[in-house]
Amino acid sequence: MEEQTKDSPSSSPLVAVIMGSASDWETMRHAATLLEEFGVPHECRVVSAHRTPRMMAEYATEAEGRGIEVIIAGAGGAAHLPGMVAAHTVLPVLGVPIKSKALKGMDSLLSIVQMPAGVPVGTLAIGEAGAKNAALLAVAILANKRPELRAKLHRFREEQERKVREAQLAR
Amino acid sequence: MEEQTKDSPSSSPLVAVIMGSASDWETMRHAATLLEEFGVPHECRVVSAHRTPRMMAEYATEAEGRGIEVIIAGAGGAAHLPGMVAAHTVLPVLGVPIKSKALKGMDSLLSIVQMPAGVPVGTLAIGEAGAKNAALLAVAILANKRPELRAKLHRFREEQERKVREAQLAR
Amino acid sequence: MEEQTKDSPSSSPLVAVIMGSASDWETMRHAATLLEEFGVPHECRVVSAHRTPRMMAEYATEAEGRGIEVIIAGAGGAAHLPGMVAAHTVLPVLGVPIKSKALKGMDSLLSIVQMPAGVPVGTLAIGEAGAKNAALLAVAILANKRPELRAKLHRFREEQERKVREAQLAR
Amino acid sequence: MEEQTKDSPSSSPLVAVIMGSASDWETMRHAATLLEEFGVPHECRVVSAHRTPRMMAEYATEAEGRGIEVIIAGAGGAAHLPGMVAAHTVLPVLGVPIKSKALKGMDSLLSIVQMPAGVPVGTLAIGEAGAKNAALLAVAILANKRPELRAKLHRFREEQERKVREAQLAR
Amino acid sequence: MEEQTKDSPSSSPLVAVIMGSASDWETMRHAATLLEEFGVPHECRVVSAHRTPRMMAEYATEAEGRGIEVIIAGAGGAAHLPGMVAAHTVLPVLGVPIKSKALKGMDSLLSIVQMPAGVPVGTLAIGEAGAKNAALLAVAILANKRPELRAKLHRFREEQERKVREAQLAR
Amino acid sequence: MEEQTKDSPSSSPLVAVIMGSASDWETMRHAATLLEEFGVPHECRVVSAHRTPRMMAEYATEAEGRGIEVIIAGAGGAAHLPGMVAAHTVLPVLGVPIKSKALKGMDSLLSIVQMPAGVPVGTLAIGEAGAKNAALLAVAILANKRPELRAKLHRFREEQERKVREAQLAR
Amino acid sequence: MEEQTKDSPSSSPLVAVIMGSASDWETMRHAATLLEEFGVPHECRVVSAHRTPRMMAEYATEAEGRGIEVIIAGAGGAAHLPGMVAAHTVLPVLGVPIKSKALKGMDSLLSIVQMPAGVPVGTLAIGEAGAKNAALLAVAILANKRPELRAKLHRFREEQERKVREAQLAR
Amino acid sequence: MEEQTKDSPSSSPLVAVIMGSASDWETMRHAATLLEEFGVPHECRVVSAHRTPRMMAEYATEAEGRGIEVIIAGAGGAAHLPGMVAAHTVLPVLGVPIKSKALKGMDSLLSIVQMPAGVPVGTLAIGEAGAKNAALLAVAILANKRPELRAKLHRFREEQERKVREAQLAR
Repeated sequence: MEEQTKDSPSSSPLVAVIMGSASDWETMRHAATLLEEFGVPHECRVVSAHRTPRMMAEYATEAEGRGIEVIIAGAGGAAHLPGMVAAHTVLPVLGVPIKSKALKGMDSLLSIVQMPAGVPVGTLAIGEAGAKNAALLAVAILANKRPELRAKLHRFREEQERKVREAQLAR
Repeated sequence: MEEQTKDSPSSSPLVAVIMGSASDWETMRHAATLLEEFGVPHECRVVSAHRTPRMMAEYATEAEGRGIEVIIAGAGGAAHLPGMVAAHTVLPVLGVPIKSKALKGMDSLLSIVQMPAGVPVGTLAIGEAGAKNAALLAVAILANKRPELRAKLHRFREEQERKVREAQLAR
Repeated sequence: MEEQTKDSPSSSPLVAVIMGSASDWETMRHAATLLEEFGVPHECRVVSAHRTPRMMAEYATEAEGRGIEVIIAGAGGAAHLPGMVAAHTVLPVLGVPIKSKALKGMDSLLSIVQMPAGVPVGTLAIGEAGAKNAALLAVAILANKRPELRAKLHRFREEQERKVREAQLAR
Repeated sequence: MEEQTKDSPSSSPLVAVIMGSASDWETMRHAATLLEEFGVPHECRVVSAHRTPRMMAEYATEAEGRGIEVIIAGAGGAAHLPGMVAAHTVLPVLGVPIKSKALKGMDSLLSIVQMPAGVPVGTLAIGEAGAKNAALLAVAILANKRPELRAKLHRFREEQERKVREAQLAR
Repeated sequence: MEEQTKDSPSSSPLVAVIMGSASDWETMRHAATLLEEFGVPHECRVVSAHRTPRMMAEYATEAEGRGIEVIIAGAGGAAHLPGMVAAHTVLPVLGVPIKSKALKGMDSLLSIVQMPAGVPVGTLAIGEAGAKNAALLAVAILANKRPELRAKLHRFREEQERKVREAQLAR
Repeated sequence: MEEQTKDSPSSSPLVAVIMGSASDWETMRHAATLLEEFGVPHECRVVSAHRTPRMMAEYATEAEGRGIEVIIAGAGGAAHLPGMVAAHTVLPVLGVPIKSKALKGMDSLLSIVQMPAGVPVGTLAIGEAGAKNAALLAVAILANKRPELRAKLHRFREEQERKVREAQLAR
Repeated sequence: MEEQTKDSPSSSPLVAVIMGSASDWETMRHAATLLEEFGVPHECRVVSAHRTPRMMAEYATEAEGRGIEVIIAGAGGAAHLPGMVAAHTVLPVLGVPIKSKALKGMDSLLSIVQMPAGVPVGTLAIGEAGAKNAALLAVAILANKRPELRAKLHRFREEQERKVREAQLAR
Repeated sequence: MEEQTKDSPSSSPLVAVIMGSASDWETMRHAATLLEEFGVPHECRVVSAHRTPRMMAEYATEAEGRGIEVIIAGAGGAAHLPGMVAAHTVLPVLGVPIKSKALKGMDSLLSIVQMPAGVPVGTLAIGEAGAKNAALLAVAILANKRPELRAKLHRFREEQERKVREAQLAR
């Protein structure tokens, strides 16, 4: 994990970016980068549903009390982290399926998205695109009561549109 | 569509439940029912990305201005509705893959969840469970600035837990 | 759940048969029936990883101390029960993927079998055959220190072989 | 995108080759190359259904009036471009599923081909072969009223057949 | 095959609707019905790539000379009919994957869509929706030189849009 | 195609090894090599169902008269060669699915194996193992009236068994 | 198993039709029926690789000495029968994947067709079509030294072709 | 196979680690390494269900008498080794699906896990993680009558938990 992120220092985190394994950071750092771009206070943690189940339960249970408003959880293979975190909190939980070695993330996707009625996980795409979109969806959720974030989202979309318009095939 | 829902009459809707076809109502009504249980003002509309693309674009674009805070979109097959709505709004969009005839919703799921970076759709499970969880996730999103909804979510979970504890195998 | 099983009354259970939902009993009862045929004391419980996560954690953690030697866990969809139970115990955990509505158990299978290194779940086939085989594998595990069970397994196999030999196509 | 194509300069385009992202050019340029070989006036554009939905709608809506007779649209992942373009025009739309990172284009294929009744997209193979065949199918469509193109198609096939006959395994 | 179609009597057919087996008529009749609604002269034939390969080759080879402008071919399982017809003609060929018993049309879809470069088949959705869309795409192709068909297509879309707008959820 | 095979010179071929594209030789040469090891006269040809359909039909039709007893056909993607050859001959046809770029041969496999009743293709594994086994199965078929081949097959199996026994993990 | 077959009484069997379970007879009887139509002496047996492994090994090993020339083996799920029989004989072995409950025969297909190099199984389609084609391929194999069978195969194909030509859509 | 393992010398093996091919050692050595870490006497053998079926049958049959208590079997593709070993013994058999070239282990997984009722195989994840977890599950099975192993398992889990807690993202 050569490239790293910082928790945003000055204020208590609104978004938690957690992942089942340190190796998932390569994917999940894209969520952190976008949150930083939007100036959203957040924290990043490795929390394993399988190897640290009690820590996971505590973390998920206490998140609401600590002022966290959205949890982004990335995991691969039999990816239980997003669903188990959702089982321990009523906060919105967003799941990012990590691309797995053998099945390329199809196992991660189905393990995250096919949750039974009662415990929702909003699932994004497999891999890097999913990590980025989890951050954007988290911002959209936060923006419901933060007009400045909504304005930033509109600018992000305009910028994105401008780039496509300009990025025409050179000739 | 024998069973029907009413838009909640007394206040302007916070959640929009839309679907690509009237036949999707059989699935999506489960979202509406849960929103009603939580007392969340909402509206239900048939909006087709493919057959009414301009109406879809207008609807998605105007939702923010009308006070909608979350859009739940259900669609099946080459399910473009959730992603296209997300392309026209910065509001949080939740996607529900409808079970399709031939491929049982695998096409719907991939069409909804595999969105490119920049335009997020929080995707739920295929079918009824997904519709219910989309409603619960919408409530969780709304609850970030509505303490009474968060309290209701906690009660919902407690009730759910109680039912499992009681629903033991009879003997 | 019209057909039901009894926990074996006379001795403390060696095998726990748990499932994520009461509706899984239709599948999991086949495990219970086989355990009874082998005279193995067992108990059957509904324990949901998602709806009763704390009960699940307690149940899994306390199983070893209560003398349980094998846990059989059935679950469907984003089937987290077997893996999460395995996260809370060092007892052998066997997973049974329940056939799901949309994806026919492929989601259940991948959610159970693709566990990360460190927390094993021995996974059986989707559905009824898997439930039966989970019971037989549990008996095989118990039989390592119970010669009478091993003898019963040999008789079971002989009987099974005899039935195939006799069940020739009538003509 | 080192290798590039030119819009055919001398006449107004008959075929539009569009793609959701500039990175799709690596695949879609094979369509452009074949159109050039057949001397078919065409234009190539990056038009994103998700990032530039209004431009996409305008582009698709105006294509008929500009004399375009066939639209070839390539996209990957939750590939909505071909279907959404088809929603905005009655021109024949051909879809090319771009090979995606995780799911190798299976998501792109299903997102493009599984269109609901009413809005057709003629879908070709995943990747380069699909891009080439989209161009050939476009030529075949144009050839219905352009005998010289039909003659060229016959020559193309004869040449293709000759190459296979000659390309025998050397010995 | 209780419900049947007539070849349009008064003029030579512009579209050929062929299928690998008489049992595919249940699906392919939806193509014929739509062609009739648009007043497009067409013919319907059972032509099997596997059981009548010479008839198939002749039929495909002679179609161009007989004035056919588009061939719609439906087939299931190892569905070779669309691709083999395309190998024998330079006319536009549209493929309809028939839903198969075991694999639900996934085999039909891949057998039709994954054609190698050089011989295109424009593939539609599995089953009834695909049959309908094949007819609509055929009409769109014919419409390039028949303004009255293009006008009909516009009216079809307007009507379709009107139906969705009216078919709102009753309340 | 750097590595090449020779048709066996001295006698007329008993087995035809054909493939849809010269690039398939990398896989199919493994069939040729094994046939040579068994001393089975054979020929290798590139015959494309899609690009040389008439040559394919002729080749398949004439094979029986030329003394060919088994045809091995390899093809990838929408792999129609084995099935179409089988449509033109009553000789035993064995199909080898070539590993394809996007879908890794799953498309090739389903296109070859899912033949309708009436026209059989005996299908082997995807890729190199399938090519080898096609040759071995061809030898087994020839061996039914050639005792020396059957003896060679027995020696091949013994040798194979010996190698596994010897190839134990060194220590 | 209401409908049954007879081993052909007058001569020793040339083809063995075996299956892993008596319930597979519903599928495999279609192979027996076709063999009878061709007048090919055959026998039908239930032989389970898993429940009667020694009987399976004996049966496969002794088949060659008993004059069997082709073995047709049907099995479902983790379908090991065809491959294990092939491991014990050098006779041509044809595999029929039985449609399974949860995965619809995809598991059966992959378990049968993906054999490693050295031990071939010629695999047919999932289910009834596969059973019929296994019989036809067996006849084709036998026909290499039995001209009267080859003649019958030609007549079978002609009859089949005639039926398609006649079975045109009524009008 | 550059890296190798030793059978544990001092005592007769309790666990057998077998694999269908020497090339599977790259995966299965991870099982051996963990067994060594736990001090569990074991042996490693190449035993092929397809190429050495008699050796496989003998090995499986005699394992119980030799004091083996758990068999771990790894195999890829049409992976019959675990199931066939289970057919010859009543010992607990654990299956490890080896990642295959074309289908990435999905074929291996289904061939191993979808066993019919009566002959169980406890299946682990595809590849290295599965090999490690097979060893851990074997230890858990042995630990039922060996308190020192159970204590080691607890320490292993604690250590594993500690590593996750410490392996936080550096900052």
